[in-house]
Amino acid sequence: MTRQIAYLGPEGTFTEAAALIYDSTATLLPYPTITSVATSVDNGNANLGIVPIENSLEGSVTDTLDLLIHYTDLQIVNEIVIPIEHCLLMKERVPNHDIQIVYSHPQALGQCRNFLENNFPSAQIVAALSTAASVEEMLNCNSPAAAIATRRAARIYGATIVSEGIQDNLNNTTRFVILAKEDHEFTGNDKTSICFSFGEDKPGILYMVMGEFASRNINLAKVESRPNKETLGRYIFLMDLEGHRTETHLSEALNKVRENTSFMKILGSYPHYSPK
Amino acid sequence: MTRQIAYLGPEGTFTEAAALIYDSTATLLPYPTITSVATSVDNGNANLGIVPIENSLEGSVTDTLDLLIHYTDLQIVNEIVIPIEHCLLMKERVPNHDIQIVYSHPQALGQCRNFLENNFPSAQIVAALSTAASVEEMLNCNSPAAAIATRRAARIYGATIVSEGIQDNLNNTTRFVILAKEDHEFTGNDKTSICFSFGEDKPGILYMVMGEFASRNINLAKVESRPNKETLGRYIFLMDLEGHRTETHLSEALNKVRENTSFMKILGSYPHYSPK
Repeated sequence: MTRQIAYLGPEGTFTEAAALIYDSTATLLPYPTITSVATSVDNGNANLGIVPIENSLEGSVTDTLDLLIHYTDLQIVNEIVIPIEHCLLMKERVPNHDIQIVYSHPQALGQCRNFLENNFPSAQIVAALSTAASVEEMLNCNSPAAAIATRRAARIYGATIVSEGIQDNLNNTTRFVILAKEDHEFTGNDKTSICFSFGEDKPGILYMVMGEFASRNINLAKVESRPNKETLGRYIFLMDLEGHRTETHLSEALNKVRENTSFMKILGSYPHYSPK
Repeated sequence: MTRQIAYLGPEGTFTEAAALIYDSTATLLPYPTITSVATSVDNGNANLGIVPIENSLEGSVTDTLDLLIHYTDLQIVNEIVIPIEHCLLMKERVPNHDIQIVYSHPQALGQCRNFLENNFPSAQIVAALSTAASVEEMLNCNSPAAAIATRRAARIYGATIVSEGIQDNLNNTTRFVILAKEDHEFTGNDKTSICFSFGEDKPGILYMVMGEFASRNINLAKVESRPNKETLGRYIFLMDLEGHRTETHLSEALNKVRENTSFMKILGSYPHYSPK
């Protein structure tokens, strides 16, 4: 049976590209927000949801972290990492100095800053809600305009690709997580994502928690803090640990952490991504 | 002599509001980007620069962290925390259901999501490069439109304030840092911001670094990780520590950390903010 995968749309985004690589036979359902992707899996409209979680240049996608911390009980069942390649799109090719406006999502604009300064020093830079939306705005614009988006967005919306690979830094990759009602079984090459916070601000308590992992030789693949949304300076910590939550040493450490924190949530155990 | 303070503009942003609270007698110079604020202080065009670093709901301003880590030797000389209050602006007051477009910066749109869903369920939501820029776009729009911005932006651009305090969460504050060529002298109520990274990915090395602070009873006010911009999964860590870098126990711990990391930078020691 074909799986239904909800993704952060519209068509032509990098999330759609990641979903196609993850399962090229699935039926893909675009949703307008990260929250609505999760809701569609909760409701059973989709079997899986896919959302971006981290970019190698920009860092974490905070809406996804906040969703996992606060707003859903869905688990991470898999991850996928894809290279991000930005393209310059126009209605039809005109000289760069004729272009008056360049549209894109603020993150894509930031990732192509040098390219824009060198090629469009006097164009107006206009933010759009997604790279895909910027193509529509460019096509509807009455002045000569360009957009920064994916190759696939050019095909979907009927725009012309003028340049490819225009991002300033070639080490530009994004990690996506696949969400489901249950996480992945043990494979032997797993990661576990957790988050936790402390009821009061005690010096050294984070150090003590990290000691539970260090003393069991559990590698910390990632540590990150997010505001707790109540008081500036109080945080929720997110960690990615090596191993599966069902392995004895990890399960023991997680129990210790649960005892010493006011809030703890396991966001899922899932295989390390390796390209097919 | 009046001080020149460079700030992230244009006029009417929250950063300008913070600069006015920090020094109401200073000459304020708007700059279009966080990087250009720092450059103006480096060049001597301004004595100080002010940029946002952290919001209680959205988390860190990653452009500011990346500036401090990678692109400037300026130091943090002070911090200031202000409440963020969003207002709904129109050309002139019309019923909400007549409004076809609502403009604002994506962060402000995110912070007023419930307000927008309840009051403008069918309006088009359009991203702008700043809350101040959204007011200009709204005023130039041929359809009935609204913008989300500051009270001061309404006055500067001649718009009408229709609602005040429309943000979903009332615990919405932003912390700004003031940048200068030298940091602050010891006051007895200080913080020190640092960043560091490791040449190789050794399990437990972050734990070891934190031990240098824990064993000296140095409280960690904040810990955060940012991608190193080279490889996904490799991080630069940022920490805010209690105390001044010239205090013996802190200076000893910092030397130990410097010995055990491949990169370490002190971003400045400065007084804890307390409202006047």
